[in-house]
Amino acid sequence: MISIYLVGLKIPENVGFIVRVMKNFGFEKLYLYDCKVTTQSFKTASHARDILKNAVILRSFDEILDHVNMLIGTTGVKAHSYERYVRKPIFTPEELRSFLEGKSGEVAIAFGREDYGLFNEELELCHMLVSIPTNPEYPVMNVSHAVAVILYELSRGKYCDEDENIVRARDIEKLVENFERLMLETWYPKHRIERTKIALRRILGRSLITKRELTVLHGIVTKAITYIEHLKSRS
Amino acid sequence: MISIYLVGLKIPENVGFIVRVMKNFGFEKLYLYDCKVTTQSFKTASHARDILKNAVILRSFDEILDHVNMLIGTTGVKAHSYERYVRKPIFTPEELRSFLEGKSGEVAIAFGREDYGLFNEELELCHMLVSIPTNPEYPVMNVSHAVAVILYELSRGKYCDEDENIVRARDIEKLVENFERLMLETWYPKHRIERTKIALRRILGRSLITKRELTVLHGIVTKAITYIEHLKSRS
Repeated sequence: MISIYLVGLKIPENVGFIVRVMKNFGFEKLYLYDCKVTTQSFKTASHARDILKNAVILRSFDEILDHVNMLIGTTGVKAHSYERYVRKPIFTPEELRSFLEGKSGEVAIAFGREDYGLFNEELELCHMLVSIPTNPEYPVMNVSHAVAVILYELSRGKYCDEDENIVRARDIEKLVENFERLMLETWYPKHRIERTKIALRRILGRSLITKRELTVLHGIVTKAITYIEHLKSRS
Repeated sequence: MISIYLVGLKIPENVGFIVRVMKNFGFEKLYLYDCKVTTQSFKTASHARDILKNAVILRSFDEILDHVNMLIGTTGVKAHSYERYVRKPIFTPEELRSFLEGKSGEVAIAFGREDYGLFNEELELCHMLVSIPTNPEYPVMNVSHAVAVILYELSRGKYCDEDENIVRARDIEKLVENFERLMLETWYPKHRIERTKIALRRILGRSLITKRELTVLHGIVTKAITYIEHLKSRS
């Protein structure tokens, strides 16, 4: 299942335009964090008010991790060198569709603020990034039109239903933290830990790993940490 | 070249949203007929105001035929039986892209009123129709989002430049009228003339015929009419 996650939208009409286009393309599940929703939103929603009424309101950006199996971030801005590891690789909507086709689990696609989009620290929490190929002279799309384009593309794919065996995104975070503990315990270069965590998160998120696989990976890391601690206590 | 033709839009913001999305996807040429353009349009146009400023204002729907080689109509509504011959066949955006790829000439894509879309008599003048596959439960898209989806799809294709040899859509009309004269001169069933004209128009429009080819076809029809008149004058 594919759901939409709106983050920090300030123009109430945009939320309405977006739920309308969701319904146009047959998508229903909406998450909202820090969005301005007013009667204007319900007006532009037109016949898709039910989606807005049923939206799940989150109290922090990362609360989405408790709800879905995978989080996709959208970005309209080209990667600057200093943030390349946060913003690469970037998929096209078509690549995203072909990646998601046939896969199980709930995947949320996050769209950010009208002016800034998603912040870097939010993009870091995403498992995949998608960007619409646009004119370099004027790449910044209105957010509701970006949603229209992505959902048009995704509406052409076939996706699988829920799968209880797939871990929630939050559980992936716990594994990433476990890996971080391992890195901190060893001679892993400190300055590379952050980008390594992003890489781990993306690999694990993209692979939609099962609970059993997660347990196996946790086991490897925890055993390694325990053994290292044991050796340290002896020296 | 692909241009956009907006017809009867009443909400000034929509015209602005549309030129913005045009610029996002690298399209520049805009025709307007009976659209409400205010300072609000320039506001929502954001950095694409130049497209709005350079728009060509038409005084009747069919004036577009003087400017382009081919006219594509958009429709969100499924064909009712009584108007099937007007509204069929309908192409998907993807089929339209693959049809247009590699072709020369200026092709205008017409988008109609927020509430009614294009009228039947306007669709009848179009050479091809395109419709975005949507959820049957709520198929009616906001017009600016429909433009976003079509231009996203078309932005992935490669098209040829202008070609002076291709006839203007207006010249196709003259040939269609010539055929009508022939039908009226003969025992062609009167009640079928209108739909036959639509079929002729679409065949000729889709084929982007050259001036030389048009002359040849005119010649055939005119010669036939002349000969019929000659025979009639003798009897």
